[in-house]
Amino acid sequence: MVSSRELAESTGTTAAQVRKDLSHFGSFGKRGQGYAVTDLRVQLEEILGLTRRWRVAVLGVGRIGSALLGYGFFTQRGFDVVAAFDTDRSMVGREVAGVTVQPLKELERTFEELEISIAIIATPVEAAQKAADRAVRAGAKAILNFAPIKLRMSPGVAVREMDVTLELEGLCYLVTEAGAATDVKE
Amino acid sequence: MVSSRELAESTGTTAAQVRKDLSHFGSFGKRGQGYAVTDLRVQLEEILGLTRRWRVAVLGVGRIGSALLGYGFFTQRGFDVVAAFDTDRSMVGREVAGVTVQPLKELERTFEELEISIAIIATPVEAAQKAADRAVRAGAKAILNFAPIKLRMSPGVAVREMDVTLELEGLCYLVTEAGAATDVKE
Repeated sequence: MVSSRELAESTGTTAAQVRKDLSHFGSFGKRGQGYAVTDLRVQLEEILGLTRRWRVAVLGVGRIGSALLGYGFFTQRGFDVVAAFDTDRSMVGREVAGVTVQPLKELERTFEELEISIAIIATPVEAAQKAADRAVRAGAKAILNFAPIKLRMSPGVAVREMDVTLELEGLCYLVTEAGAATDVKE
Repeated sequence: MVSSRELAESTGTTAAQVRKDLSHFGSFGKRGQGYAVTDLRVQLEEILGLTRRWRVAVLGVGRIGSALLGYGFFTQRGFDVVAAFDTDRSMVGREVAGVTVQPLKELERTFEELEISIAIIATPVEAAQKAADRAVRAGAKAILNFAPIKLRMSPGVAVREMDVTLELEGLCYLVTEAGAATDVKE
């Protein structure tokens, strides 16, 4: 068994928030006893859609794209990176972490054939929007974007941004603000 | 000049939210006219602490760490990646994108000497917490964490998590939920 307090501690939130979040999806756990770990895990996996495997393609096989292709943790968590695309002729045909880089013209056929539902955008910034649009037209339901640009996608498409520079800028703000707060106190 | 509506459109929020967020930091712009782009840019850079340059170290020079070391966009936006560390003897001494990989024992000296304030954690998951703790003791004020683990840091330290798998799982939830909603409609 695990209590909402223990779950809160390990995830950095409050026990009340854990109980509220879980209650949103139904009735888990027993009052005063907490949650049965095995049951909770299965239920969370069902909620998150992780009881199936997901096929992923990487668009843009530069530094970031290559790193993602070789990220073993994906497979362990249910994600199979099955295709990679690049416009650079010197990249096409190369094998990166077991995946052969294809030219962009193969995208539609490959997405359909392999039933790819998630596209990771790791292209240069100027190619990102077009790449994402093309992936969606080819059947992608979700986009994980590493290019430092806010993508405009139609409402039905799930998008998450992984903008490293934006996160660094967020950190700078926090550090600067904390420094300013300290200055005032002194 | 740029209006709050235009700013909202390009960032994916509402005009009211843009006005509210900016008013939190003072009085910019003129009613009915919008914001002067050059002034707004300077003021935002000051708020975010981006009028100075920030020195960054990468801890863990595997696939992700190497990709980050070579990410030219950082320099352009005010971040100088000036040091890299790894425990792997075969990596130490190598030059990656102009930065020589140092052994971990040099961390304290290098952080002090180069006045490094941001540490990017790109170690394996089991080494992440220790690496982050050590960086903070050596003077880091902010941590950007790529290891798939929630770090526990003292309150004064700014932390952002870049957990690719977590983002993918978030996308799966959105896709699964959307699918379920469509099923119900049908």
